[in-house]
Amino acid sequence: MNTQIKLAKRPVGMPDASTWRIEKNPIPTVGEGEFLVKVEYISLDPAMRGWMNDARSYIPPVQIDDVMRAGCVGQVEESNHPGFQKGDFVYGLGGVQQYVATNGKGWHKIDPRIAPLPVFLGTLGMPGFTAYFGLLNHGMPKAGETVLVSGAAGAVGSIVGQIAKIKGCRVIGIAGGPEKCKYLVEELGFDGAIDYKNEDVKAAVKRLCPNRIDVYFDNVGGEILDIALAQINMHGRIVICGAISQYNNTTAIKGPSNYLSLLVNRARMEGIVVFDNVKNYGTAAQEMGGWIKEGKLKSKEDVYEGIENFYETFQRLFSGKKLGKLVLKVSE
Amino acid sequence: MNTQIKLAKRPVGMPDASTWRIEKNPIPTVGEGEFLVKVEYISLDPAMRGWMNDARSYIPPVQIDDVMRAGCVGQVEESNHPGFQKGDFVYGLGGVQQYVATNGKGWHKIDPRIAPLPVFLGTLGMPGFTAYFGLLNHGMPKAGETVLVSGAAGAVGSIVGQIAKIKGCRVIGIAGGPEKCKYLVEELGFDGAIDYKNEDVKAAVKRLCPNRIDVYFDNVGGEILDIALAQINMHGRIVICGAISQYNNTTAIKGPSNYLSLLVNRARMEGIVVFDNVKNYGTAAQEMGGWIKEGKLKSKEDVYEGIENFYETFQRLFSGKKLGKLVLKVSE
Repeated sequence: MNTQIKLAKRPVGMPDASTWRIEKNPIPTVGEGEFLVKVEYISLDPAMRGWMNDARSYIPPVQIDDVMRAGCVGQVEESNHPGFQKGDFVYGLGGVQQYVATNGKGWHKIDPRIAPLPVFLGTLGMPGFTAYFGLLNHGMPKAGETVLVSGAAGAVGSIVGQIAKIKGCRVIGIAGGPEKCKYLVEELGFDGAIDYKNEDVKAAVKRLCPNRIDVYFDNVGGEILDIALAQINMHGRIVICGAISQYNNTTAIKGPSNYLSLLVNRARMEGIVVFDNVKNYGTAAQEMGGWIKEGKLKSKEDVYEGIENFYETFQRLFSGKKLGKLVLKVSE
Repeated sequence: MNTQIKLAKRPVGMPDASTWRIEKNPIPTVGEGEFLVKVEYISLDPAMRGWMNDARSYIPPVQIDDVMRAGCVGQVEESNHPGFQKGDFVYGLGGVQQYVATNGKGWHKIDPRIAPLPVFLGTLGMPGFTAYFGLLNHGMPKAGETVLVSGAAGAVGSIVGQIAKIKGCRVIGIAGGPEKCKYLVEELGFDGAIDYKNEDVKAAVKRLCPNRIDVYFDNVGGEILDIALAQINMHGRIVICGAISQYNNTTAIKGPSNYLSLLVNRARMEGIVVFDNVKNYGTAAQEMGGWIKEGKLKSKEDVYEGIENFYETFQRLFSGKKLGKLVLKVSE
């Protein structure tokens, strides 16, 4: 059987257990030009919260009664598709389920000899590519500049910070709790870390970024975006990647009151969506794979097990009870 | 004697009559390397409100007891400066006064045969250059795109809209009152105008920008910025030139709640300051002078008289009781 997690209703604010329902259905049959993937791991990303809203966005919303959308890696079990063979390892937006039949659109092969499968959901997957293209093409960091990143211990933030270090920047990360901050500095080589749960973030940013901020990579929005705006440098670049602090709001999103700092400092704030770079994913994977081999880029996955634990695992995205890329093993 | 308007105290919210004081002092003597300007006209700009705050900005604040900063045009009466001769017409940040002695830093000559003196405070001055560089270098309008501009009947906005028309764009302006809206469409050739004082701006923007907004040139901030953000197109550009709706706030500035539309639409919001383009003012003046000659660019100045009426004239910036570039004749 194929266990599936389907969207039962649109959440208002934080999703709860009744937002999804679990179903067991027959394993799909494979049509002409299709292949069947046995899903091994699914990716849990803050962006999934946005996909649940019935609003115009960069991707259509998940429909009620549809399988919840998620990135996944798995292995081809059966194929009527000329481009994919039984045994191939693949990545695609297969959804929160154990089996998926697809015509291959949006899927690509991955090589498990390069890295363990969960890494293809993190550093060598959507979050890693988000960090790579967002930072390099939009943040445009130059050696010697100061880069501040929020959600710094997360799947995107941790890669942003490490790539900025590779590019010769001073890198400060903002994360929740002493364990994550220690990880940033001691394991990932950040120049400093700010524990937003226990520190005065504004004072810490001023202290750790004495030359102000040249690039701010924002994953959180809210007050922290305002603090970064106030400290942005002349011609600074703010990359809007996400706003996890605002995703479960039941009231209006908090707009950045300090946005006129963009004017004072001739600075820029720009939004990014990783899907725009799909034709360059290969380049990114190759360069990041090289950095991983050289030990310059470290990857951390926080892997939980059991598709029936999807809701509990999803909650960790917003409670912060995880370290690195959040992944759920759904195969049995 | 030299009548001067000096900053008496820092305003909280909207300045009032007690914010400035009027003084009569002797006409300054001209030192070595200096020249004396008899000021003819001063410029009244919304930016002056920002210059009065004791805050980090793109220019130091006006100090208490200093002459109020303002752009001005006048004629050299006496010169010990090799670059300026008696009789030359000049532009500079001379301040709200009838005479100023200067070493020439930041001053340049203007040619009154090209246009009447007040035009050098508007279309061929700071507001015109703001429009020119802000729109062309940061808005980057392409023929066929939709450009929305707020404060559209003002000194900057009216030039932004006309340059966008010259570049082949569909141009919609937002202004206050039917007279200004009529002026935009009938005299300046805008494709549409929205009267924010009497219309539902959101509905009007949706109606008049059916292909959404490619470039939004923002002079006002507040709710209108949020409406524009919601309607921004893929890869749209928002130029933050000012935020007149927020300048006299006594509470926090309203941040744009819809800023995540930047992410959804991979759009950009960027701040500009005209002074960054000082070395290219000549190029702009030449091109805009050409457009004026060809009848493609219309200039409108709203000229009041008497330095003693500075405060009443300044108020018009925020009450909207003016049409075009607000100028005060201070010579007698």
